Amino acid sequence: MEKIPYKIYLEEQEMPTAWYNVRADMKNKPAPLLNPGTGKPMTAEELGGVFCDELVKQELDNDTRLIPIPEEIRAFYKMYRPSPLVRAYCLEEKLGTPAHIYYKFEGNNTSGSHKLNSSIAQAYYAKKQGLKGVTTETGAGQWGTALSMACSYFGLDCKVYMVKISYEQKPFRREVMRTYGATVTPSPSDTTQIGRKILEEFPGTTGSLGCAISEAVEAAVTREGYRYVLGSVLNQVLLHQSVIGLETKAALDKYGIKPDIIIGCAGGGSNLGGLIAPFMGEKLRGEADYRIIAVEPASCPSFTRGTYAYDFCDTGKVCPLAKMYTLGSGFIPAPNHAGGLRYHGMSSILSQLYDDGYMEATTAVQTDVFKAAEQFARVEGILPAPESAHAIKVAIDEAMKCKETGEEKTIVFGLTGTGYFDLVAYEKFHNGEMTDYIPTDEELQKSLASLPKVD
Amino acid sequence: MEKIPYKIYLEEQEMPTAWYNVRADMKNKPAPLLNPGTGKPMTAEELGGVFCDELVKQELDNDTRLIPIPEEIRAFYKMYRPSPLVRAYCLEEKLGTPAHIYYKFEGNNTSGSHKLNSSIAQAYYAKKQGLKGVTTETGAGQWGTALSMACSYFGLDCKVYMVKISYEQKPFRREVMRTYGATVTPSPSDTTQIGRKILEEFPGTTGSLGCAISEAVEAAVTREGYRYVLGSVLNQVLLHQSVIGLETKAALDKYGIKPDIIIGCAGGGSNLGGLIAPFMGEKLRGEADYRIIAVEPASCPSFTRGTYAYDFCDTGKVCPLAKMYTLGSGFIPAPNHAGGLRYHGMSSILSQLYDDGYMEATTAVQTDVFKAAEQFARVEGILPAPESAHAIKVAIDEAMKCKETGEEKTIVFGLTGTGYFDLVAYEKFHNGEMTDYIPTDEELQKSLASLPKVD
Repeated sequence: MEKIPYKIYLEEQEMPTAWYNVRADMKNKPAPLLNPGTGKPMTAEELGGVFCDELVKQELDNDTRLIPIPEEIRAFYKMYRPSPLVRAYCLEEKLGTPAHIYYKFEGNNTSGSHKLNSSIAQAYYAKKQGLKGVTTETGAGQWGTALSMACSYFGLDCKVYMVKISYEQKPFRREVMRTYGATVTPSPSDTTQIGRKILEEFPGTTGSLGCAISEAVEAAVTREGYRYVLGSVLNQVLLHQSVIGLETKAALDKYGIKPDIIIGCAGGGSNLGGLIAPFMGEKLRGEADYRIIAVEPASCPSFTRGTYAYDFCDTGKVCPLAKMYTLGSGFIPAPNHAGGLRYHGMSSILSQLYDDGYMEATTAVQTDVFKAAEQFARVEGILPAPESAHAIKVAIDEAMKCKETGEEKTIVFGLTGTGYFDLVAYEKFHNGEMTDYIPTDEELQKSLASLPKVD
Repeated sequence: MEKIPYKIYLEEQEMPTAWYNVRADMKNKPAPLLNPGTGKPMTAEELGGVFCDELVKQELDNDTRLIPIPEEIRAFYKMYRPSPLVRAYCLEEKLGTPAHIYYKFEGNNTSGSHKLNSSIAQAYYAKKQGLKGVTTETGAGQWGTALSMACSYFGLDCKVYMVKISYEQKPFRREVMRTYGATVTPSPSDTTQIGRKILEEFPGTTGSLGCAISEAVEAAVTREGYRYVLGSVLNQVLLHQSVIGLETKAALDKYGIKPDIIIGCAGGGSNLGGLIAPFMGEKLRGEADYRIIAVEPASCPSFTRGTYAYDFCDTGKVCPLAKMYTLGSGFIPAPNHAGGLRYHGMSSILSQLYDDGYMEATTAVQTDVFKAAEQFARVEGILPAPESAHAIKVAIDEAMKCKETGEEKTIVFGLTGTGYFDLVAYEKFHNGEMTDYIPTDEELQKSLASLPKVD
């Protein structure tokens, strides 16, 4: 048999020309967004005040299986894609496992993560609609960076509300965004009504993702020629991210490889949803079977300890309601939580698939995650983002099980990004100062008490 | 004609299997290293106290044209190589130039630069010789990071002396090295005799590359089972870096492209020497002609304003003397100089080639360099290291000349690395606080007064 290379690259002409919409193959469709005022599903018109028209279409389209990727977006994809599918020969050898481990590496672009796959699409549609600019929030900063890059490419104004504590602790992220011409405002700020209200109520607050979302939405809807864009959770984002899975599948198919286990980290679900999309499609259509595992932080366990219910998407409660596995919109991970994967809810698509039993979920504590990250870095070269290292942790665990049983399983995981901006956390880990936190049942009950009542 | 893709990747089997030693094709060989005590060329035995045996051979070998790359190194190369040769379609369009611009991007690995190409080779030979570990110095931190990665891969101890001001200003670089298990000591330190002496003489000093070299060499020669390794300047390093040029040439040849101009930034010369190697070989053999341009910082202009003479390689004067274009071993770039390219001398190979008229050199001030960096980042996506941006600056200049003349020249430049750890400098640039400095003739005369007397 032909030896599998270290890195499988697709040729340009092998790159996907359409995104795959997994909803088309779901029998139980994800629940629609609801208008918090009326409790009725959001109409295209209502959503059009917040999102670009074309993205609203994509958000609501549960039927079209393949949605063509516009030529301009494909041209941009070619600047940094295809991303390599890497055979982790060195890790396998180090572990002494008979398992075959592959990872799809999305960190080889300046945003440092997979987020660029969706930001360039969202910026393109905003430009095409003749808008002046877009607003968004960012926590760890990957999404804000990705959006800044996309906006500078299309000449759009970009306003980023960055969670205040990240703004202060990650000044370098801010500078990357400024390099791409974005305006970055620490949130909560006095530039929005909701920001001023939150500052009044909680004067010393260091901000949260839910609060930054509220500000970004307000900044968009109160400005002529602006719309709001979001980097995860939404159906449209998972659609764009399907490019990850489509490339992964094409690369595996080239060598006739069929994975047994597919693993991805899960915060809002954009990477996981993208990575598994075409595999999940086969599973839904009964054409193949795969074990699909979502890994979330033990400190923010929406899949494993949340409730499947309608909830607010943001702290200010200005957004539509979404049905998802949620910890309650007031949930904020403990201060010792490093990195992203800190959103209180999970993509509606993945929530439905999980609820229907098509995938598993597990958690990892962060000291174990950083241990896996360091182990991986030392043999595979790449310094992973803490988010991505959740998947590494579980991939290693599964590979070690294979070592015990002697099974030659094929494991594929998503390496979403690099950890260049997470070195404060790495430093804590090296100095033995990193701690773990698992929320108590009481804490979760408390944050879940704020769920809205929906008939 | 077949459309050139955005990124030309070689297949694994097209990757170089031997390094190219440009010295074999040089009529005037680079001058040998001299023993500072005797003034005589360093023997293999003398060099063997400092460097690994196999590397000493490579250092002294002016004749063997192709030196096979050991299988273990080729396996590691496959983890992060081949690096892409990128057609800068977006930059060309933005500039409106008829020129065709290509860049060889070496930043897609965690060390963030081309330095890994040589560190993995040096670590391999150290391991093969049964050594316990290696010592080195690092300034901006790219080399230290690359060496840490290589040592962790082969299970070698790695001691890095990091210029004190960088150690303090770039704590994240230090943490990356620690992730790979290296010990990082700010230099000058009290762990070496020379360090203590320098600290006594200059109590408040923030260190320099020349001083860190002295400490690293002392740390190696006074320890059983250790050798010193260096990331640039040396013949062996340029040899390893020839992999950059060989891949570049193979990728261009695949599409029948012949460059007119080849541009690289130049500090100690490792990237430039590697990038141009096979092209220079053709030029030396009279088989082809290329314009080859070295770009150095106006604040550290060894080619353009230095003297071609034997000089000390380090501040402590413990190293052999090298004949090179130099500003004097006491030269330290002004404190406002950001990034690397701060060594006082230039590779002996490149110095000889430059002196023989085979290449040109030019300078750029750093505000212009950062302007070019930002322009590039916004259209090509990649956030470049300040070092690499010197080449971008001149590539853009040359492309704009083509716009004036209408010439469809092919320009190739080396994009050596990413700027993730240079965001303090980017911030200064964004805030309008970055300044330029060009040393006066008097300053250079003063630093050149320290040149050793060699018959």
